[in-house]
Amino acid sequence: MTLSLPTVTSRQQSWAGLIETYRPYLPVTDTTPVVTLLEGNTPLIPAPAIEAQIGRQVRVLVKYDGLNPTGSFKDRGMTMAISKAKEAGAKAVICASTGNTSAAAAAYAKRGGMRAFVLIPDGYVALGKLAQALLYGAEVLAIKGNFDQALHIVRDMATSYPVTLVNSVNPYRLEGQKTAAFEIVEALGTAPDWLCIPVGNAGNITAYWMGFCEYHATGKSDRLPRMMGFQAAGAAPLITGQKVANPDTLATAIRIGNPANWEKAIAVQSASQGQFNAVTDEEILDAYRLLASQEGIFCEPASAASVAGLLKVKDQIPTGATVVCVLTGNGLKDPDTAIKHSQSSFKQGIAPELKAVAEAMGF
Amino acid sequence: MTLSLPTVTSRQQSWAGLIETYRPYLPVTDTTPVVTLLEGNTPLIPAPAIEAQIGRQVRVLVKYDGLNPTGSFKDRGMTMAISKAKEAGAKAVICASTGNTSAAAAAYAKRGGMRAFVLIPDGYVALGKLAQALLYGAEVLAIKGNFDQALHIVRDMATSYPVTLVNSVNPYRLEGQKTAAFEIVEALGTAPDWLCIPVGNAGNITAYWMGFCEYHATGKSDRLPRMMGFQAAGAAPLITGQKVANPDTLATAIRIGNPANWEKAIAVQSASQGQFNAVTDEEILDAYRLLASQEGIFCEPASAASVAGLLKVKDQIPTGATVVCVLTGNGLKDPDTAIKHSQSSFKQGIAPELKAVAEAMGF
Repeated sequence: MTLSLPTVTSRQQSWAGLIETYRPYLPVTDTTPVVTLLEGNTPLIPAPAIEAQIGRQVRVLVKYDGLNPTGSFKDRGMTMAISKAKEAGAKAVICASTGNTSAAAAAYAKRGGMRAFVLIPDGYVALGKLAQALLYGAEVLAIKGNFDQALHIVRDMATSYPVTLVNSVNPYRLEGQKTAAFEIVEALGTAPDWLCIPVGNAGNITAYWMGFCEYHATGKSDRLPRMMGFQAAGAAPLITGQKVANPDTLATAIRIGNPANWEKAIAVQSASQGQFNAVTDEEILDAYRLLASQEGIFCEPASAASVAGLLKVKDQIPTGATVVCVLTGNGLKDPDTAIKHSQSSFKQGIAPELKAVAEAMGF
Repeated sequence: MTLSLPTVTSRQQSWAGLIETYRPYLPVTDTTPVVTLLEGNTPLIPAPAIEAQIGRQVRVLVKYDGLNPTGSFKDRGMTMAISKAKEAGAKAVICASTGNTSAAAAAYAKRGGMRAFVLIPDGYVALGKLAQALLYGAEVLAIKGNFDQALHIVRDMATSYPVTLVNSVNPYRLEGQKTAAFEIVEALGTAPDWLCIPVGNAGNITAYWMGFCEYHATGKSDRLPRMMGFQAAGAAPLITGQKVANPDTLATAIRIGNPANWEKAIAVQSASQGQFNAVTDEEILDAYRLLASQEGIFCEPASAASVAGLLKVKDQIPTGATVVCVLTGNGLKDPDTAIKHSQSSFKQGIAPELKAVAEAMGF
């Protein structure tokens, strides 16, 4: 029963996860136990609807990192942080987080056979946001205090007890995250002219820049991108130069008033001749809906800040330039925003007959 | 600033989506407009915790198709169905679905510049389940009738009006879905000994078998797998041989009483010397939690039926065999089940002090 069908040509090797793929660029050795969910290798999707809004032969693609195993770019950093924790003999990890970090930490820690503790402020968070971490088996501790106190305590815990801290101060996380830049360079053959990225704690923009610089240094890219960072208007300390005591935006993943990587982000902006700008929640929502309803891509609201920002400064893009927008998280992480802000039509009470349905459809 | 870092060796070509990758195996021509979100290329993740429960050198991997662009395997079929609809000049597509099909149909249709209609029974579904389709821009029509009537009407609509039906009767969907089998063969170098898969409408098991047979016929695989299909006990017509009037299971994605591909599924079972079995909701939930809390993989409840089934019949697996379990959807699609059925620890009211937290952690 052998047929002579043509051979598939554009085959790829099976993806082995970030650490195996980029081993020479990462601080691991042959004896580091690799804890992986085969993260990375996320699609770089052309965005023709966004291109149409810009014109002038500008090419736009989105790096859809929401397709990582736990639904966000945090997996890139967490495979490194957890592998190194395991290498060091840790039996437990801890973080203060109510969102993507806690989910990634729990998934990788449990896969690595470790306990995962998540510290949060009492009453701070809807249970829904923690559903994912809980199912992964995180042990959640809610303190009678605020988020700053939680951060303080997890740092102390990691100093005084045999528990590894996997919050963003963990240095291995940026090492893992930089691989997203490698993937973009490999897909395009070089770096883009612009890299548009949401900025909260400013770890990811720092990591991308590290990645682009390393690939430039080794000759894999013939250029370095301008790093265009976008913060939510209600949480824009890098734009105003002032800490924000009560950051306010529906883009929860970038609702941060005092970025952990503030100085690094400013250095990236300067070295790349980049620019930081603020986008309003309305602009974020417009981009969020545009991505879903015209490109077919469902991202977290915070992710859409990169596209909102690109559209805001579109007149500055050189004609014919290539732009990559980073979408950091999966829209499925935040169904409430989708329900609240979709503008789609929902007609009810239609008679169960062909004609009635056709009429409702406009035929 | 050129450094002499080693070259990355395990590089892969950039993934161009299913249709471009498997073009010779799919019913497309050079003029077919390809509507793609770069679906497919999903990870095949080793499952050491499941292996440990089985022993005897059995190798277990999970095909995590929840990492497709809209969060389920439906994207594989939808890139084909929508590309062919566009090729035929369709301006709109329609389906009756409250779940993964409607999300995939909406995303691909809108990306292809078409309208997407979703027909559902009035009051049948929580808005949450439709959030994703609505954000993609689906136009939802709720009829005063049941799901069978909705199915009937969408079929009639597609016959009488210029609207393409993208429900599971669309023949192109199975063509796209079969590519998951191709990916598995390429990752393993051959087909697995067993393929464990959740069965609802029985389209996916049919498609996988098509894919394995094609790769076997062309010599890409030296074997064909036994197809092990698992239905939920409350919706198991293929096991009982009787239609189920009111199918009942929390695994909503396989809650189907009268599978569209009934005969095809029986033919696959027979040709592959496979077996169909039922798993209870409790067994499904146990597998769902096991996958999350030990493997670090968050899937839809229905997806976990493949693992629940494997564990149920584990004594039948030949020593040293390789088994692949298909995880059809992303757990983020169904946060309510995660909240309700996680068994993790959540402690509240802890004093905001190192000692109190350490004590709560058991130190």
